[in-house]
Amino acid sequence: MKAVYFDNAASTKMRDEVISVITETMKSNYGNPSSSYNIGRASKSLIETARKAIASLLNVSASEIIFTSGGTEADNLVLRSAVRDLGVKYIITTKIEHHAVLHAVQELEKEYGTEIIYLSLDHLGRIDLEELESHLNSKANALVSLMHVNNEIGNILDIKKVGQLCRAYKALFHTDAVQSIGHYRIDLQDINVDFLAASAHKFHGPKGVGFAFVRKNRNVKPLIFGGKQERGLRAGTESVHNIVGMEKAMILAYDNLEDEIAYIKDLKLYFINQLKSKIPNVAFNGLSEDLEGSTYTLFNVRLPIAASKSAMFLFQLDLKGIACSKGSACQSGSNQKSHVLTEILNHDDLEKPSVRFSFSKYNTKQEVDYVVEALKELI
Amino acid sequence: MKAVYFDNAASTKMRDEVISVITETMKSNYGNPSSSYNIGRASKSLIETARKAIASLLNVSASEIIFTSGGTEADNLVLRSAVRDLGVKYIITTKIEHHAVLHAVQELEKEYGTEIIYLSLDHLGRIDLEELESHLNSKANALVSLMHVNNEIGNILDIKKVGQLCRAYKALFHTDAVQSIGHYRIDLQDINVDFLAASAHKFHGPKGVGFAFVRKNRNVKPLIFGGKQERGLRAGTESVHNIVGMEKAMILAYDNLEDEIAYIKDLKLYFINQLKSKIPNVAFNGLSEDLEGSTYTLFNVRLPIAASKSAMFLFQLDLKGIACSKGSACQSGSNQKSHVLTEILNHDDLEKPSVRFSFSKYNTKQEVDYVVEALKELI
Repeated sequence: MKAVYFDNAASTKMRDEVISVITETMKSNYGNPSSSYNIGRASKSLIETARKAIASLLNVSASEIIFTSGGTEADNLVLRSAVRDLGVKYIITTKIEHHAVLHAVQELEKEYGTEIIYLSLDHLGRIDLEELESHLNSKANALVSLMHVNNEIGNILDIKKVGQLCRAYKALFHTDAVQSIGHYRIDLQDINVDFLAASAHKFHGPKGVGFAFVRKNRNVKPLIFGGKQERGLRAGTESVHNIVGMEKAMILAYDNLEDEIAYIKDLKLYFINQLKSKIPNVAFNGLSEDLEGSTYTLFNVRLPIAASKSAMFLFQLDLKGIACSKGSACQSGSNQKSHVLTEILNHDDLEKPSVRFSFSKYNTKQEVDYVVEALKELI
Repeated sequence: MKAVYFDNAASTKMRDEVISVITETMKSNYGNPSSSYNIGRASKSLIETARKAIASLLNVSASEIIFTSGGTEADNLVLRSAVRDLGVKYIITTKIEHHAVLHAVQELEKEYGTEIIYLSLDHLGRIDLEELESHLNSKANALVSLMHVNNEIGNILDIKKVGQLCRAYKALFHTDAVQSIGHYRIDLQDINVDFLAASAHKFHGPKGVGFAFVRKNRNVKPLIFGGKQERGLRAGTESVHNIVGMEKAMILAYDNLEDEIAYIKDLKLYFINQLKSKIPNVAFNGLSEDLEGSTYTLFNVRLPIAASKSAMFLFQLDLKGIACSKGSACQSGSNQKSHVLTEILNHDDLEKPSVRFSFSKYNTKQEVDYVVEALKELI
């Protein structure tokens, strides 16, 4: 069967070079990184080299990178410790964050009575910086958690501006950057984020590894207690091969970044134009049609289909070998509506099927043509 | 340089078949298991097949296995949820548990005021079941956390008997089985444990993956909140390749178990006998000399060396290419004394260097001879 993979925001195909280095590491480096003898030190050295490489790509110190089992764990580590250990009483966020943030803060509300303040959103999913500022002005001990790139509608947040506001009002700032690390150059000396979460499998790296950036002197404490790994901040024997794979994936992502951005951006534009010309009345959710306001890696299209046809829609695409999604992967299995679209669309628009297509360097215009034809046929 | 790896309790060399299946999975299965289309379902299916295979080896239901990033996370998940969600007020444990349990319960004491009761230990590291029973008798809402096989001295706990006591007094029972899963056949229908933690890299699987067994109707809640993975009990995109690798490692461990036990047990006996005949006054810590009372995979030997020589001892072994450890890997880097030996040895014995040697099927009698000669020379 033809396989056309347009769900790169859910997960990406690993680069061959990443698979090779992981395989080689599994063969040669079985020492426990916490051990003091030769083969243990070799594993430790791989981890520390990876930490330096990743830190350097973000222009931070190696000691500010904590390896985790993925973006979700990184979000949970930061948010829980902010409330439990750093005196945070208010979390300012939105209802269109990834569930890794949304469900984590809801749990903190329940456990610690943390007040969660949800910023208003317009019909394109944008926050109002003045509203943010007025909350910052009235709440001490606040943490702002806003994602850099929304995983469903692609909206890019101006994290530099939000960071400046947070600094001005002495609030902490956490950003889930799972959709932007590996896709955008980010200089963390230039941007006032205190915490950031990233995940390797979103940039052609392995699943099950990610990292938290924690700025110096933000004294978070562990989510997982035990051994002294990660300078005492994350216990458990490190997934050495996964960490080395993440390092490789991240280096390659940034080595090839400008070329790949140009290629994928062109593909997105082509896809949008083909859709608009072949399917009357398509519309785009959030800012995803706007090439500057949204990430080049995805768009979220609302299709002019009768509600009756809409239930079987993704299933029919799947039969044609097309992989895409209704929202975040977490919800694909269920018939639940996207929590993001629910927040920003009116009732009628919400009833129409919306589909997220997300891209990588492995996609082609031929694949776009195939998908547009398939969509036309189904509509 | 000669490399003789006798630290298999810290981590193990991965089996070739495990590396192959992981590499193959990384190449072919990049779909997000939470996605509903073909390549996503393929990843999901790999995970669920792994879950069934692992569950079946322990004689439990697939739904009772929760995949985690390792043993430490599994311990933390169970212990925290027991206190936060299941009403546990007392945790009965010992001071010679792995730090994944020890530091987790100390944190719970701090956060929730949970009372931690440490059982007494004799000079061989054994608990007294009558003392355990008297605590169970006087404390309602208790959880017992005792490891199956001690990672430093190898003592095997009779978890069947402890489980019967816990059931009789309606206490919950958690066991860190990181050193026994993959090394012993364990029928969890026969043993009343409510929770168990395991880690793949201790049985020739990958680092960064493990699982918690949670018996049906023990309604734990997540440590990591977010997506609905692991039936809502552990958020975060699954490390598909690592899970598949753990499955393979576990199947192979049990396929070859009796042969490998016989081989390794013989090696341990040979090693002990060589040490005793070549080095007068060696002694063994805990029950580790006792082939029935301790695991066949390790012993912990106390060497008759002057305190002055003892500091450089592991370093000198390392120079000869010999990998072994003072205690758990977590401490190898530091000059800290083993927390296990500190609890059970008298002052004089504690001053002598103690070394843990731990074995796998990849070790040979030639390696034992080499090490015994090296030790003789150094003493």
